[in-house]
Amino acid sequence: MYRSRPVGNLNSDALSFSSSMDDDVDLFFYDILGSQAHVIMLFESHILTQKEVVDILKGLNQLLSNPEQLNKHGINSSEDIHEMIESAIIKITGIDSGGKMHTARSRNDQVVLDIRMKLRDDINSICSEILRLVRSLVRVAEANVDTIMPMYTHLQQAQLGVLSQYMLSYCYSLIRNFERYYDAFTRINFSPLGACAIGGSSMDIDREKVATMLGFSGIIYNSVDATSSRDFLIEFISICLTTMLDLCRMSEDFILWSTSEFGFIILDDKYSSSSSAMPQKKNPDPLELIRGKTATIQGNLVSISSIMKGLPSGYSRDLQELKPLLWKTSSTLRNSIKIMEGVVSTLFVDKKAAYNSSSKSYAIALDIAEQLIKEGNISFRVAHKVIGALVESASGRGNIPMNTLSVDDIAVVLKKIDFSHPILTSEKIYRTVQSITPENSIKLRHTKGSPNKNEQFFMITHLKNVLYRYENNLEHRIEGLNKMQKSLIDRIKYLIDQEYP
Amino acid sequence: MYRSRPVGNLNSDALSFSSSMDDDVDLFFYDILGSQAHVIMLFESHILTQKEVVDILKGLNQLLSNPEQLNKHGINSSEDIHEMIESAIIKITGIDSGGKMHTARSRNDQVVLDIRMKLRDDINSICSEILRLVRSLVRVAEANVDTIMPMYTHLQQAQLGVLSQYMLSYCYSLIRNFERYYDAFTRINFSPLGACAIGGSSMDIDREKVATMLGFSGIIYNSVDATSSRDFLIEFISICLTTMLDLCRMSEDFILWSTSEFGFIILDDKYSSSSSAMPQKKNPDPLELIRGKTATIQGNLVSISSIMKGLPSGYSRDLQELKPLLWKTSSTLRNSIKIMEGVVSTLFVDKKAAYNSSSKSYAIALDIAEQLIKEGNISFRVAHKVIGALVESASGRGNIPMNTLSVDDIAVVLKKIDFSHPILTSEKIYRTVQSITPENSIKLRHTKGSPNKNEQFFMITHLKNVLYRYENNLEHRIEGLNKMQKSLIDRIKYLIDQEYP
Amino acid sequence: MYRSRPVGNLNSDALSFSSSMDDDVDLFFYDILGSQAHVIMLFESHILTQKEVVDILKGLNQLLSNPEQLNKHGINSSEDIHEMIESAIIKITGIDSGGKMHTARSRNDQVVLDIRMKLRDDINSICSEILRLVRSLVRVAEANVDTIMPMYTHLQQAQLGVLSQYMLSYCYSLIRNFERYYDAFTRINFSPLGACAIGGSSMDIDREKVATMLGFSGIIYNSVDATSSRDFLIEFISICLTTMLDLCRMSEDFILWSTSEFGFIILDDKYSSSSSAMPQKKNPDPLELIRGKTATIQGNLVSISSIMKGLPSGYSRDLQELKPLLWKTSSTLRNSIKIMEGVVSTLFVDKKAAYNSSSKSYAIALDIAEQLIKEGNISFRVAHKVIGALVESASGRGNIPMNTLSVDDIAVVLKKIDFSHPILTSEKIYRTVQSITPENSIKLRHTKGSPNKNEQFFMITHLKNVLYRYENNLEHRIEGLNKMQKSLIDRIKYLIDQEYP
Amino acid sequence: MYRSRPVGNLNSDALSFSSSMDDDVDLFFYDILGSQAHVIMLFESHILTQKEVVDILKGLNQLLSNPEQLNKHGINSSEDIHEMIESAIIKITGIDSGGKMHTARSRNDQVVLDIRMKLRDDINSICSEILRLVRSLVRVAEANVDTIMPMYTHLQQAQLGVLSQYMLSYCYSLIRNFERYYDAFTRINFSPLGACAIGGSSMDIDREKVATMLGFSGIIYNSVDATSSRDFLIEFISICLTTMLDLCRMSEDFILWSTSEFGFIILDDKYSSSSSAMPQKKNPDPLELIRGKTATIQGNLVSISSIMKGLPSGYSRDLQELKPLLWKTSSTLRNSIKIMEGVVSTLFVDKKAAYNSSSKSYAIALDIAEQLIKEGNISFRVAHKVIGALVESASGRGNIPMNTLSVDDIAVVLKKIDFSHPILTSEKIYRTVQSITPENSIKLRHTKGSPNKNEQFFMITHLKNVLYRYENNLEHRIEGLNKMQKSLIDRIKYLIDQEYP
Repeated sequence: MYRSRPVGNLNSDALSFSSSMDDDVDLFFYDILGSQAHVIMLFESHILTQKEVVDILKGLNQLLSNPEQLNKHGINSSEDIHEMIESAIIKITGIDSGGKMHTARSRNDQVVLDIRMKLRDDINSICSEILRLVRSLVRVAEANVDTIMPMYTHLQQAQLGVLSQYMLSYCYSLIRNFERYYDAFTRINFSPLGACAIGGSSMDIDREKVATMLGFSGIIYNSVDATSSRDFLIEFISICLTTMLDLCRMSEDFILWSTSEFGFIILDDKYSSSSSAMPQKKNPDPLELIRGKTATIQGNLVSISSIMKGLPSGYSRDLQELKPLLWKTSSTLRNSIKIMEGVVSTLFVDKKAAYNSSSKSYAIALDIAEQLIKEGNISFRVAHKVIGALVESASGRGNIPMNTLSVDDIAVVLKKIDFSHPILTSEKIYRTVQSITPENSIKLRHTKGSPNKNEQFFMITHLKNVLYRYENNLEHRIEGLNKMQKSLIDRIKYLIDQEYP
Repeated sequence: MYRSRPVGNLNSDALSFSSSMDDDVDLFFYDILGSQAHVIMLFESHILTQKEVVDILKGLNQLLSNPEQLNKHGINSSEDIHEMIESAIIKITGIDSGGKMHTARSRNDQVVLDIRMKLRDDINSICSEILRLVRSLVRVAEANVDTIMPMYTHLQQAQLGVLSQYMLSYCYSLIRNFERYYDAFTRINFSPLGACAIGGSSMDIDREKVATMLGFSGIIYNSVDATSSRDFLIEFISICLTTMLDLCRMSEDFILWSTSEFGFIILDDKYSSSSSAMPQKKNPDPLELIRGKTATIQGNLVSISSIMKGLPSGYSRDLQELKPLLWKTSSTLRNSIKIMEGVVSTLFVDKKAAYNSSSKSYAIALDIAEQLIKEGNISFRVAHKVIGALVESASGRGNIPMNTLSVDDIAVVLKKIDFSHPILTSEKIYRTVQSITPENSIKLRHTKGSPNKNEQFFMITHLKNVLYRYENNLEHRIEGLNKMQKSLIDRIKYLIDQEYP
Repeated sequence: MYRSRPVGNLNSDALSFSSSMDDDVDLFFYDILGSQAHVIMLFESHILTQKEVVDILKGLNQLLSNPEQLNKHGINSSEDIHEMIESAIIKITGIDSGGKMHTARSRNDQVVLDIRMKLRDDINSICSEILRLVRSLVRVAEANVDTIMPMYTHLQQAQLGVLSQYMLSYCYSLIRNFERYYDAFTRINFSPLGACAIGGSSMDIDREKVATMLGFSGIIYNSVDATSSRDFLIEFISICLTTMLDLCRMSEDFILWSTSEFGFIILDDKYSSSSSAMPQKKNPDPLELIRGKTATIQGNLVSISSIMKGLPSGYSRDLQELKPLLWKTSSTLRNSIKIMEGVVSTLFVDKKAAYNSSSKSYAIALDIAEQLIKEGNISFRVAHKVIGALVESASGRGNIPMNTLSVDDIAVVLKKIDFSHPILTSEKIYRTVQSITPENSIKLRHTKGSPNKNEQFFMITHLKNVLYRYENNLEHRIEGLNKMQKSLIDRIKYLIDQEYP
Repeated sequence: MYRSRPVGNLNSDALSFSSSMDDDVDLFFYDILGSQAHVIMLFESHILTQKEVVDILKGLNQLLSNPEQLNKHGINSSEDIHEMIESAIIKITGIDSGGKMHTARSRNDQVVLDIRMKLRDDINSICSEILRLVRSLVRVAEANVDTIMPMYTHLQQAQLGVLSQYMLSYCYSLIRNFERYYDAFTRINFSPLGACAIGGSSMDIDREKVATMLGFSGIIYNSVDATSSRDFLIEFISICLTTMLDLCRMSEDFILWSTSEFGFIILDDKYSSSSSAMPQKKNPDPLELIRGKTATIQGNLVSISSIMKGLPSGYSRDLQELKPLLWKTSSTLRNSIKIMEGVVSTLFVDKKAAYNSSSKSYAIALDIAEQLIKEGNISFRVAHKVIGALVESASGRGNIPMNTLSVDDIAVVLKKIDFSHPILTSEKIYRTVQSITPENSIKLRHTKGSPNKNEQFFMITHLKNVLYRYENNLEHRIEGLNKMQKSLIDRIKYLIDQEYP
């Protein structure tokens, strides 16, 4: 329809190659809303008559409530949703009214407008899902403040801890991502409309009025910046990647813990898959898929940044490729959080297995070393050496637990490493080792943020407060957008009713 | 259907999250063919009776000719195409026959089989498209062996050349990619079937027989390797990326050359887009999209390699995410080559504009320098300095062409840089400069592979020979696969006819 | 030195493979400062005696002022800077004092501490460089508010504009990135120290005291989160990528504009490279390198996110690979901004060439169309069609400028497209076309953020205000860190002087 | 030195920003050799006199044996190694001889020459390392053909297998990569020299003669292709990534198996790291680093392909950024293979632990199912259901092994799922379950490529043959290059001796 100059039509292969229709469906609603605000402003700026604006508004309402009209009225060979909608409006209202809809506007500013509008909603719904997941994690944490289990570094047992400590660590990380989305929203929430193709317009339009009608906090001022910049997309998708990496880390933990070798948790059957061949299998497929989809979103970030790389200022068609990557990322992320919430809230924790593993573990070694420091005032490095030798000895004897070493066993080790100390005799060390039960290991470690029960409760309370505050903030923001939308719709209705009472 | 152990069904969100149905549609045909070969082998290995095999073969044929049956017979909640087809077969033939189809097989070997089968066809069709594009490029080259134009390095005019030289350079690069696909095919063309879940089977199956029936050149021997390795995918998609980078380079050249500033070529209207706002615009959108889609494929390679990174041996569900990336890459690449072929074969070359630009260009500077070397036996570095000074002087006077420098102008420059030489006087240099017309510039440079007309003809002839040979090889390969497929279908028909004459 | 358990040393290949010494040099200063704060806290928590803390502080001061001591005292086979420093301190102070330095600490929390400290400084210096560049851009903008030039979309001339409009668009984008760094800082500025290996300590330490001494605004509470999370790195490097993409876009613009075909700007010789072969060449190498280095940073982001992908909670050695990527990114970015500042502040603008190009351009088409709308009250779509036809006609006659079309020429076109209108006669349209000089084109487009001179001045003033405010904020933040550092050094001096007066 | 036109020097920041000196050190040797071949050809083409060529050859020899001369003679402000060497030669031999070295050559063809020469050697040494690793893997496989262990899919126990099966699977994958490098070599082994800047030369040079002297199998014909294409780099680094992904998979397997939970293998102390805090730790750091470095190489591939994306034809300075990425990738990969060889050849296998785990595992479920099929002629789906139910029952009773289910237990299960069969009574099934010991499980599965002992021996023999053949081929190829190099050096010596006897 726009082809005022090139002769004939696009080659049909080229058209289907160029078409972004499939990816634009998501923008349909936003494009209509944006166009309605635009024409109302044109009317109030005396560029459209009341009849013209109302005809267009009615036409757009029709399309909105009856999208299949598009196929009837929109020229089939449309390159994108924007062209299709304008074509349909011209068909419905005639060229004299409908042909004015695109006055002082270009696809270049229009498409960024739509993207920014949809992104606001996507961010809000991602934020909701994150808070739901955090709530579930806090719940599981509350139920497991005394589920003692080994904590791992390098996938080797490191120190003893509690399951809730892991759950809470996920919460903190997710909350930081919530904050990033929340900040990013404030940078996205500006209207580019009125920048036109790249250099503005000579029509007497009011950029800020449209922005306000659509709930934006202002306009992207510079017209080149408004149409060329996509930094907000990279910010958004980077946060999506960080969020997926959180989910991916949780998945990796859960996959490991649900092996028969670790055995600390069992996934609910609703979140386990079977095998086509092996009758015994219960596979953590949803978690593996989250891990896989993390890679997909990582790839999308690469694609998006690569699209931008090497482009000069001004809209280039390359930018069209951003849209499918963006919407795919958004929805994958939202679904992944939802699935993870399902996995978490149905998780069965095998407390006994976790405790058994803990009670045989050398992960108490550092606790013992710290006790020796306190008891004997030796330096950490010396204590490290002594306990290292004890572990080596126990391990060499078939990985027996440390508390099965006798006083004599300990004496032999101390001799071997030439350690003698007035207080830290083999008897004393024996008693110290005996005293470090899994329960005591946790109780003794009382530093801020440690697996200690008091600390668990402190963090749980803190996170609940954060949740309460953030849920309120988010609700407030969502309501704000709803209100503006409602008010715009009211205005449209009022205008139409006035004209055709 | 496989859920012999987990109780109840997958959570419906989890099912839709886990489902690969959308991406599996592409595998439908291959899965059926693979299953047919598998059951014939089971029959010939005396694991299925003739009636059983025929019932299954017929059922599979039905599904093939009537795919919507799947929705009727396949259990709705199927995770993937493999499960869905098996469910349908069991519905059609009863559990006693259909329940045997999956004997000595697992989704783990089955899914790689399907991927390898489809990939063979994808490679063959990509290879065809490449050769078509090369043919068109050679044709454009033939028509432009004397279209003189500046050649660029750093986007600055460097030496004069001819348009055909660029077209031929694309050919060489595309041909190398053709060869890479051709080699990759030989590594893909092995059957994993019979590796089962990861450790083979105790049934008396014949892995090589299935492989032969399906046109493979052999089997992937080791069962862990067969089910875990995806190196062939990374090889494939890497070549896709290299090919897209070829197309991307061509796009960048064409986009630049079709600006009003360069103006050497004009894209056909069929491959140009208009602007929604600016009536005068003719935009090279298809080329920009190729550039953008290069980034998408680059992201897909990242996703695919990231999915593999961190996985242990043995099938993990993460691998499912490979499929959509793969098929999307394949089809995007194929379409991009096709579009580029359209652009190339309809390109209008503005020979006059290219010549005009050449005749004012300093890109003859190196030619002049080389002439001075020959005439005065001076060193290259000295000649470089002399000509550099001449260009500086011409450029300082409003970028006038070098051949407008008078003998006196030259004398002034030589003096300034203290150059005096018995032969290379300012008169001599003046005459040399005058002699280097655009035509002579090209004619003088006669090294192998240079823009010289003889060399252009040599390369064109060479590439035509290569094309002829490669087209034959490719046709041969495609026919080989067709033949095996036909023979398998004949065998199926024969078996069915024997049972139900 | 830590090898209390494994027998013998690391294989020497494995040591050099594992060693991060090269990448740790950057952390030397921060590691020492962090250790000093740590031991002061240990002393104030009664874990170290005054003599012990002072011995260690003195030893660390020695190393700081004399880093080559490290090679003497540090065990050669150290895996990393942390181990090397501790070894040296033990050599200098003896095992009884020095062996206590690592009490209630692990490399796992120590390394994140160092990274966070260095990152704060890196961010501050990047922020400074960004503001310097923005200042230079504003200066160039001020000098070019009336440098009329074509503005491009799809690399085709779109609308007329002014050079300053581009410069200002870069500013806005850079300022947004400044804000992102500024926000990221607040998330980085938390101390992980005291999380120990993964599960805290039983020693009576004061995590918050160390944090305050080192200028942090608080602690990363949860010990698993503190040692496992690297989301702040991905946030940082994502912003680095966005910033590089800004520079890359500027580079692309400048490279194009400095070709002989566009010719709007000339890079200063100080920022141009010559050719080894072609005497005439002046190449925009620094800009090309910025473009290339954008790709490097993009790759670094992939590496960093891929390292995280697939890791379970708890420190894994994979994380060591993050450091070189991070420091390389930081310094590349800083240098790139600096180079760009040099390019911008020495740029020569060829105003005449830019004007010449503008005066022949069809980029006034939209302006004319908008005039017709105002004059004839026709719809935009109709105006678009009319002007499209005029351009087509002018272009078909050898790309003659629109204002060379005569009244008759216009009449022919109008007839051809069947356009007749009471007001918009061919004479009227002719006069309208004549009225749209480059100057009028800009003057007429007066929407907010357009190339209009008033708008240029508005944006310049706005940006100057922003610069003033942000420079103050940044200075304030930097001074804050300097003050804490000075106060820590004073405290160290005081302690040492007290002990060894 | 090349600055014949731009006035003054590069800004010093810009110089250090632009300089590739650090990354060029690796190319020093190749650049000299390439220059020597080039000047010999120039001499034989009557462009240099005997004295000139000998002076240059001697000068280059001096630099080669005494590289620090470069700093003395090379102009400090050199942008790269190529310029530096030429400067030094001019200093040593005078401008009249040395100034001729660069005749009919440009940095654009020279730099690709050097890269291709170094890449040949890199590929050969990577190939050697791969074969060494495969040899070690085969050795470990030979020692573990009867080390029964569970095999995993989805990280859940799937089927029983043997350790050698995994080792052999790595071999097959590595061998395929060997083949890819081997093929890539044939595409790299062409000389670009003589393509000059982009458009060849008017001097009477012989491109093929230089190519032969340097051991190439021919020339890259088209001059644009020769200087612009970098597809061979992407091919190379893609194979590097695939190889790293092999090592990464091995690392992941080994890291898991060496946890205290799995416990099948113990890494040698020489390849284990200790903890700074936890005395008991033995961490698989070298393997974690391989995993981390996989991500780095993945990022390098992204950087390299992103550098290429968006570039037009002709050398652009962006390409310089390829070199450090390339050399870093090469050396990281080589070291990683070497480290993995060390890990593999010193691995301790805890056969008893592996067997214990196997004997309690449900991974025999499929074997039992297949026995029931044979014994009762039931369909696979039915057998799957029956065994699934048995496992569910055993698992529900505290994960007891299947062979502890009594006849009555089985009868209860069969009743529950309504399974009754004339042959497959609960007694019969009981006996079948009892018969499937770990040993029998392996013995029964005799399909090609399965863990069965015969199959292990077959694969070991096969791989030894492959190794023998490939080692020979590789040696042959390396010797070929050595021979050409020796012959070139002889020729140089002969020329020098002739001139200065």
